[in-house]
Amino acid sequence: MLYSKRDVDDFQNIALSESHIISKSTFTMMAGPCAAESRDQVFRTADALAEIGIKVFRAGCFKSRTDPYAWQGSQEEGLKWLDEVRQQYGMKIISEITSFTNYAVVAECSDIIQIGAKAMYDHSLLIESGKAKKPVLVKRGFGTTVTEYLRMIEYILMQGNNDVILCERGIRTFETSTRFTLDLCGAVVMQDVTRLPLICDPSHAAGKAKYVSKLAMAAAALGCDGLIIEVHHNPSEALCDRDQALTIVEYKELHKRISEIVEINGRKII
Amino acid sequence: MLYSKRDVDDFQNIALSESHIISKSTFTMMAGPCAAESRDQVFRTADALAEIGIKVFRAGCFKSRTDPYAWQGSQEEGLKWLDEVRQQYGMKIISEITSFTNYAVVAECSDIIQIGAKAMYDHSLLIESGKAKKPVLVKRGFGTTVTEYLRMIEYILMQGNNDVILCERGIRTFETSTRFTLDLCGAVVMQDVTRLPLICDPSHAAGKAKYVSKLAMAAAALGCDGLIIEVHHNPSEALCDRDQALTIVEYKELHKRISEIVEINGRKII
Amino acid sequence: MLYSKRDVDDFQNIALSESHIISKSTFTMMAGPCAAESRDQVFRTADALAEIGIKVFRAGCFKSRTDPYAWQGSQEEGLKWLDEVRQQYGMKIISEITSFTNYAVVAECSDIIQIGAKAMYDHSLLIESGKAKKPVLVKRGFGTTVTEYLRMIEYILMQGNNDVILCERGIRTFETSTRFTLDLCGAVVMQDVTRLPLICDPSHAAGKAKYVSKLAMAAAALGCDGLIIEVHHNPSEALCDRDQALTIVEYKELHKRISEIVEINGRKII
Amino acid sequence: MLYSKRDVDDFQNIALSESHIISKSTFTMMAGPCAAESRDQVFRTADALAEIGIKVFRAGCFKSRTDPYAWQGSQEEGLKWLDEVRQQYGMKIISEITSFTNYAVVAECSDIIQIGAKAMYDHSLLIESGKAKKPVLVKRGFGTTVTEYLRMIEYILMQGNNDVILCERGIRTFETSTRFTLDLCGAVVMQDVTRLPLICDPSHAAGKAKYVSKLAMAAAALGCDGLIIEVHHNPSEALCDRDQALTIVEYKELHKRISEIVEINGRKII
Repeated sequence: MLYSKRDVDDFQNIALSESHIISKSTFTMMAGPCAAESRDQVFRTADALAEIGIKVFRAGCFKSRTDPYAWQGSQEEGLKWLDEVRQQYGMKIISEITSFTNYAVVAECSDIIQIGAKAMYDHSLLIESGKAKKPVLVKRGFGTTVTEYLRMIEYILMQGNNDVILCERGIRTFETSTRFTLDLCGAVVMQDVTRLPLICDPSHAAGKAKYVSKLAMAAAALGCDGLIIEVHHNPSEALCDRDQALTIVEYKELHKRISEIVEINGRKII
Repeated sequence: MLYSKRDVDDFQNIALSESHIISKSTFTMMAGPCAAESRDQVFRTADALAEIGIKVFRAGCFKSRTDPYAWQGSQEEGLKWLDEVRQQYGMKIISEITSFTNYAVVAECSDIIQIGAKAMYDHSLLIESGKAKKPVLVKRGFGTTVTEYLRMIEYILMQGNNDVILCERGIRTFETSTRFTLDLCGAVVMQDVTRLPLICDPSHAAGKAKYVSKLAMAAAALGCDGLIIEVHHNPSEALCDRDQALTIVEYKELHKRISEIVEINGRKII
Repeated sequence: MLYSKRDVDDFQNIALSESHIISKSTFTMMAGPCAAESRDQVFRTADALAEIGIKVFRAGCFKSRTDPYAWQGSQEEGLKWLDEVRQQYGMKIISEITSFTNYAVVAECSDIIQIGAKAMYDHSLLIESGKAKKPVLVKRGFGTTVTEYLRMIEYILMQGNNDVILCERGIRTFETSTRFTLDLCGAVVMQDVTRLPLICDPSHAAGKAKYVSKLAMAAAALGCDGLIIEVHHNPSEALCDRDQALTIVEYKELHKRISEIVEINGRKII
Repeated sequence: MLYSKRDVDDFQNIALSESHIISKSTFTMMAGPCAAESRDQVFRTADALAEIGIKVFRAGCFKSRTDPYAWQGSQEEGLKWLDEVRQQYGMKIISEITSFTNYAVVAECSDIIQIGAKAMYDHSLLIESGKAKKPVLVKRGFGTTVTEYLRMIEYILMQGNNDVILCERGIRTFETSTRFTLDLCGAVVMQDVTRLPLICDPSHAAGKAKYVSKLAMAAAALGCDGLIIEVHHNPSEALCDRDQALTIVEYKELHKRISEIVEINGRKII
């Protein structure tokens, strides 16, 4: 039997320092900009999100861009800004690892190790993160079946690290009116066949800010365990994925609506 | 500009007899068996659903089966049972049209004309239903883009019938753990670019009863205007799509949960 | 066992008048414009193709357009032009049926009944053509699996008409650099599991004239039994699918190259 | 303008030692087992292929398995066997790199650096191989669009290495009768928009040995520059992908047929 299907003794033990960040009684919001662009940008967004009550701050430093002439991320410098955010606001940090070459430096700075959708087939990354003493969030690839995804996750679990968070972020289909197709059918299957917590990423699926909130509400009603949302203090100036970032004001409104939905399922937004 | 994008003066005017069945302040549940199998089966399910408060009863009489050796539906006889249901319980009837050859007889018996996902490219059907004085529900094909779907809908609107209800029921993707992939991204886009009401069909998307309720809740939270759900008084004996039919008990529980979700959006379940 | 899998006693018996048009020793080219636009256009193209040696002329009269404001075909008038072409050049005629409403009139004029990709789920059409005494070509739907396609074909075979020609014309995938994705993998599977003849339609798959010839050569090398190609005497003026039509000159060159390829498999181009 | 679209001065300069392996006048066959399983297995297959005239021998040593409990490859030991094959038969070696962690050791042993479909988004790998003085073959990901694929290739070209070989190996679609769907439409587009040589991998697309040869012939007729085929001296005993491996006898027959097809295009099989 696969580890992912074993009773991993309740996933409530995905603990970040003292507090349980993902649990069956809470609903975890992870938010922040697509990329850490500058110290100023990181702090403006973090400051606003901390005030709303966000406990997990997301921002990519190594960017997996398909356009080789696009900006490739703030890299090590960005990780320092995130470290400052952790210290100043007490937020947990999650930042994407895109290749084995940046695993060590990003994992070191992260409270939750994030393996991106394009890197999730890299066995070395999975095995390495399976040896870490931190939660690992692995995004499902956009061309990856549910079965294949869970088998790759198994590479982490086999190493003894049960703190894995699944993330549905959209698959590639013939429909092009959104960037990807959020596969909530697949999300329901994953909830059925594994005990691992599952969050959704409506930002990458939608690709457009105006569609993010409704998809976020759908995912919340489905019973997933949290959301990861792209928020930027000024999306029109964002260096990457600007079309899909919510403004602080939009995020605040969404946060309120999500809290109402998850209450129905007896969960408290954090 | 396309009719579907024009301000069709609020879709609240999709009226069935006196009462408004689809409106911005209500959330419409359509439920019933995949197929009208026998008078007894139809009445057992209808009786239970009427008691729960369902106002639109669904049941197919002409079945669009891909297996030519499978049962092909109760046809004209089934339509008579549906007529009896209408009279006895005061429920509105919706039943799928699969070909121009059964258009007249099914449309005659229906309160809402339903054009199935496999028949939605048939211009003759669309044009004919555009001349009818009844609401028309057209299911999106499983291989149909949002743009193409709305263009086909235009064939109905052009004839002067504005009472069109859109229905997202899942698209075909590489993911095979569910029967189809419910495209809630596409649903959100449709809500953005047209004024037409939109319902979702989680039963056909899921293909398995145990996944239907969560998907139904997701669709409700998204802000769609209703759901169409397959319910059977005894799914294990169903002559078609038995795996995806909810029992009466399961439907009842779902109905209650949906009512809580749509209340958040200020809507009343009917 | 399905009819499509039975030994249908060799498909060489798909006979058009005296001569066998599709057989294991020949390779059948069907060509002509997407639509019969005018008597002049039909004759210009037919004249050039007859000279090259084409024996099956294609041209749609009832067009299944997704854009309701686009031209909808020359309809009955176009069918008359095709009848003239048959008489003048001795070519066989194939023209698409898009709905039950045009079945009778189009089938009457056709030597090969063509059921389009968007109409292939219409049981009434399939059953009706199964009763006809003519070969039937059914295009695979762009959202249709091989298994589902063969099951629909069975509706024709069950009626006693074994003269069915399969046609792979591309499926809808996430790749958008061509109009559809020609599924030659599916074509090979169909050749394996049925005895029915199979042709390919590279024009609709490619969507762009410059890609048609290479795909046609690939399909020919695969061992399919023929091709259906869109040719227009002046593509820039075509009323529909102008981007994918070959000029007469381009078609002539392709014809020559296909003849070389099929010779390797011991077949003669007709 | 992208490097991949620049006139890279003819791709004939992809030279392996003295001889040009990929050129416009030749058609390159790469063949060998999915995995190097044992010294005996490698040599049996290599011996037979050398006799047929194969100049590029393929065999994976680091296997990117989705099943974590499956055999993971012969790794460094396998690379030694490949080195022996090179010395004994004078064949060029190509072996897949699956992660940055095995880049150095595999690239060192390879005459053509192969980046697998699951690793093609790893920028570090692409950049590193762009600095190498060897040809690089990158397989297109099964969830990757043509545009995205060519952008990733650009990461290699930007480093100054123009010797890149594209490889179409099938994309993931709703069709499940084959393992993947060989996208020859995409292949034609790539031939149109870049000057880079392109080969096809029918083995992974088909997933079943009996479908490989026909797909190989289709790809050859299309005008691609070579093929990479899985061959095993005894497929029923293969430790991985046994269903899709050709026997030596089957390969020999295919080799002969391909040679006839490419001759039509004025190319000589090597």
